Amino acid sequence: MPDLILDAIPGLPEIAAGDDLAARIAECAEKIGGFQEGDLLAIAHKVISKAEGRTRDLADVRPSPRAVALASAHDKDPRHVEVVLEETSELIRADHGVLICLTHHGFVCANAGVDASNSGADDQLTLLPKDPDASARNLRSRLGELTSVRPAVLITDSFGRAWRNGQCEIAIGCAGLAALDDWRGRTDSRGQELHATWIAIADQAAAAADLVRSKDSREPAVRIRGLAQHVTVDDGPGALELLRPSSEDLFR
Amino acid sequence: MPDLILDAIPGLPEIAAGDDLAARIAECAEKIGGFQEGDLLAIAHKVISKAEGRTRDLADVRPSPRAVALASAHDKDPRHVEVVLEETSELIRADHGVLICLTHHGFVCANAGVDASNSGADDQLTLLPKDPDASARNLRSRLGELTSVRPAVLITDSFGRAWRNGQCEIAIGCAGLAALDDWRGRTDSRGQELHATWIAIADQAAAAADLVRSKDSREPAVRIRGLAQHVTVDDGPGALELLRPSSEDLFR
Repeated sequence: MPDLILDAIPGLPEIAAGDDLAARIAECAEKIGGFQEGDLLAIAHKVISKAEGRTRDLADVRPSPRAVALASAHDKDPRHVEVVLEETSELIRADHGVLICLTHHGFVCANAGVDASNSGADDQLTLLPKDPDASARNLRSRLGELTSVRPAVLITDSFGRAWRNGQCEIAIGCAGLAALDDWRGRTDSRGQELHATWIAIADQAAAAADLVRSKDSREPAVRIRGLAQHVTVDDGPGALELLRPSSEDLFR
Repeated sequence: MPDLILDAIPGLPEIAAGDDLAARIAECAEKIGGFQEGDLLAIAHKVISKAEGRTRDLADVRPSPRAVALASAHDKDPRHVEVVLEETSELIRADHGVLICLTHHGFVCANAGVDASNSGADDQLTLLPKDPDASARNLRSRLGELTSVRPAVLITDSFGRAWRNGQCEIAIGCAGLAALDDWRGRTDSRGQELHATWIAIADQAAAAADLVRSKDSREPAVRIRGLAQHVTVDDGPGALELLRPSSEDLFR
């Protein structure tokens, strides 16, 4: 039995606002044997956003003067910029045509997570879920109603990082997964204290899930088997635990 | 056949300077069936550092006045601080008892990666490998001599991040693994251009590997099966590709 096994959940149909996403996932997961206790379902946020109606038609957006000015300076669509600004509590940087935003949730990412690709229509934007931890809790609860098991649920997005090229998939919401594993103060196999060992399990699981799906595929959902030691009966505090207060952030 | 399978390589003995690490890994990997073409071997850097003699005995370290002053201000061992400074090209921040350093390699991390835990002796520090990409190439080459296959090799360390709590395992060296997967300019399943989709495969694989080993265990090496599309015959440019030039870094 391998230590960790990841399978993309095949055949998930296009999701629209109001669809029963949990039912679609449960059906498609049957093709790979369904869920077991201790499994983790990792899912790219876009399909959650679509099911929750967190999309905007560009035709309905009236850009503010600030959005028009920013869009002009950065060669972007002012309506896209308007929606980015609506999702943003602090614009951290605007450069190289990219807006780095602190979202109302507390995430730091490009364009406040507002995305024009893969949204299912040319003139539509996909936003981040309003409360991704709540989305994860709801999906877990509904999966529990539909099937005999309640896998932990992890909602992910791909974020750029300071200091390093490329993006990594990270956790923006979770339920039933302990987002952090705290070894600080514990000792290693030699009895020495483990310094600063505080592991972002949820982010690492998000990164692992991304390895099994192609960016142009229809496989937003991945079943991860082998992390039962981090899966909890209670939904827990979610991915908000991963947000570092600026007062404690030495890396920015 | 699952999409991605990770197995910790069991029973790796304590490694000392000059040991044939590849031979020990090849032996232990036999217990889980050995390597196949397309496999990736992910290994925590400490065991590489030990094999390469990249350790320092605290008793041999004479702290400079700068190290003594920093150590005093941050409640640290001045000899440890001295070694950190020797590994550092720029001290980015010193706060909360932590030194955030730009290493000579170009990595940004706490204490320049100099670690006192798990080093196998109370009075010894473990440094990062001098050239982790070269270490990965050497290990890959030696595995090829010893076995019939040459798995890709990934050397990892756990780094803190800006904006987010907890650490993630990241890539500090690799050989035979394309560290970045560039989808920029390509289109998604709807024919729309994928914006800013430039995936740090090596960092995501490092994170995935970390999920299967406990921090207090003797399992620094993990076999990852299912990433053959990112494994290359040539060793390639390594993990240096992941270092973002500060002029292009909008996140710091």
